[in-house]
Amino acid sequence: MGTSTSFQAGTSSVVPIRVRDERLELLDQRQVPDAIEYFDATGLDEMCFAIKSMIVRGAPAIGAAAALGLAFEARRLVRSTAGREEFFERLAHARDQLQATRPTAVNLSWDTDLVFRFADKERLSAEPLESLTVKMVDYAEWILARYGETCKQIGEYGADLVGQTASILTHCNAGALAACGWGTALGVIRSAHQRGCKLAVYVDETRPRQQGSRLTTWELLADGITPTLVTDSMAGHLMANRMVDLVVVGADRIALNGDAANKIGTYTLAVVARAHAVPFYVAAPLSTIDPAIGSGSLIPIEEREGSEVTIINGREICPPGVQVYNPAFDVTPASMISAIITETGVLKPPFESSIQAALKSRKLTP
Amino acid sequence: MGTSTSFQAGTSSVVPIRVRDERLELLDQRQVPDAIEYFDATGLDEMCFAIKSMIVRGAPAIGAAAALGLAFEARRLVRSTAGREEFFERLAHARDQLQATRPTAVNLSWDTDLVFRFADKERLSAEPLESLTVKMVDYAEWILARYGETCKQIGEYGADLVGQTASILTHCNAGALAACGWGTALGVIRSAHQRGCKLAVYVDETRPRQQGSRLTTWELLADGITPTLVTDSMAGHLMANRMVDLVVVGADRIALNGDAANKIGTYTLAVVARAHAVPFYVAAPLSTIDPAIGSGSLIPIEEREGSEVTIINGREICPPGVQVYNPAFDVTPASMISAIITETGVLKPPFESSIQAALKSRKLTP
Repeated sequence: MGTSTSFQAGTSSVVPIRVRDERLELLDQRQVPDAIEYFDATGLDEMCFAIKSMIVRGAPAIGAAAALGLAFEARRLVRSTAGREEFFERLAHARDQLQATRPTAVNLSWDTDLVFRFADKERLSAEPLESLTVKMVDYAEWILARYGETCKQIGEYGADLVGQTASILTHCNAGALAACGWGTALGVIRSAHQRGCKLAVYVDETRPRQQGSRLTTWELLADGITPTLVTDSMAGHLMANRMVDLVVVGADRIALNGDAANKIGTYTLAVVARAHAVPFYVAAPLSTIDPAIGSGSLIPIEEREGSEVTIINGREICPPGVQVYNPAFDVTPASMISAIITETGVLKPPFESSIQAALKSRKLTP
Repeated sequence: MGTSTSFQAGTSSVVPIRVRDERLELLDQRQVPDAIEYFDATGLDEMCFAIKSMIVRGAPAIGAAAALGLAFEARRLVRSTAGREEFFERLAHARDQLQATRPTAVNLSWDTDLVFRFADKERLSAEPLESLTVKMVDYAEWILARYGETCKQIGEYGADLVGQTASILTHCNAGALAACGWGTALGVIRSAHQRGCKLAVYVDETRPRQQGSRLTTWELLADGITPTLVTDSMAGHLMANRMVDLVVVGADRIALNGDAANKIGTYTLAVVARAHAVPFYVAAPLSTIDPAIGSGSLIPIEEREGSEVTIINGREICPPGVQVYNPAFDVTPASMISAIITETGVLKPPFESSIQAALKSRKLTP
């Protein structure tokens, strides 16, 4: 673990994942903003731990990190395995381990599948494993870089939906930390800010893990946007007092009908936005759409440790004996989503058809 | 400050306010459940500080504490003032100081007005100030005890609305700590539990001050009810998954049309309950109804320090430079309230008429 600046020169954006020679490093998001430290996730076990414990978090960042983790593991395997068959067997096992770390975000399985299939199509070819693994790392690095590009595109399409003066509410962190580069929901805010829009940005603190108060505020301040922090419970009061023009959030998995899983609390926000006729936008790359899932009811919702709710800053806040229910995500039905902002444009209802059309333009290779 | 048990023998209920000879003591609710300590609020300045800093909190508890504080101050004044006229002038000033501590809960001004008027009607009489102040303390003690009775009545009326098996969601702390005795919203839960109903009780943690996770869970555990703690943002997910049969909350001020101010987040909860056709009940004594206010838009909403949001367990959770918006209450419109549970019965819409009828039965003296 080392200490380093986490802002990439020239882009004003945060770097959650970095490849340094033979090392794969992740900004430890559990510690931001208290400490800016990179965690060495070069080994497969370390990468699995990093995803489970949310050192790296956010659907796209998890996907890119796991893709790189698999490619790095391939490079290690080629040095330690006896032959081609064993290499592919152990590679598949590594993919399964990575995919089992967290259940909800689909980018994790999508991106690791991409890297695995990239290699697997050479299973019977004459391509030497050494050069194949070099190409796998290059491909995983492309996946990472590609998220940066898509976020910028999402930001530009999304900014078209933001007025010259606008008050925006966002939840959790769908920024550079979560999605690389420009961010998804925060990409929309960044692009609108860059165009000179006068923005008031309200940030939900996002209990239990405080991604809003810790991460989103930190990112926005670094880009010269002063956020206003609120508790998650204030959305209704803000909207009743006409203090919010639009809501924009990220997503962890989107079903083919447009239902979107995202950080717990998103659905409550969508219900309140709907009650006040406030537009509710989901910003996400096309890789967040799961072509295998027809509706949100099929999306697995991760439940996490109760201690995330009961322990803050290292101390219990409630008496012993309390039960905790801690679902990490919820599902917002398509009917409550005004539009889904992707790298190929703004998808509008009916989402069944707009999503099908958009999926055809997914870019899977450089 | 001393350490002591805070549960009253035989009632299983918490004692937020106690009179011990010449001392007026308040359970320091900022520290519960970490420490059970009583704060000496015998002096007027100490009582004002205790209300402002939320050592004592909850509309009825604030009202009773301030009423006692004013009576105690009267006792002090009679020893230190030159004559009858000066006594009443300084008593009015003390009342004003107490009423200025917090703006939203109406019980504070209601109960201090009761005690002031109780004395003021003797302004021109021959009643000696010494005996008058003894009677003022007795009257304030009756106001405190009366909240205990009303809570029990609220609990019984409210329990009629709870099924034999029910899942209940509550927000903040409307329990013995907030309302004395049996509690208001928690009174409903306690009475239903006592009747043998099988209850699942979900408790919103209630950011920023965690009255749910710190206080409500503590009270319920003490009464043998195991609560399930959730973050405020989970209400939507719980209701979408049919995990909540009814919501019951307290109130800090109710307008004549039934609009109710309560802890921030209550309105968001009401919107979500409405969207899922989940009954939404407000439990409060009649003294929480403000006969001077026709609708909720006239209720002053207190804004508190941003540090309540940014500092948890003594440590900043967000980077420096973040703005915070921290309204302590919000207003739920009458149209979203299924019923208001009071000590004289369950008030139903249209609230204009049911509230007017109930106000006639307010009990102002022993």
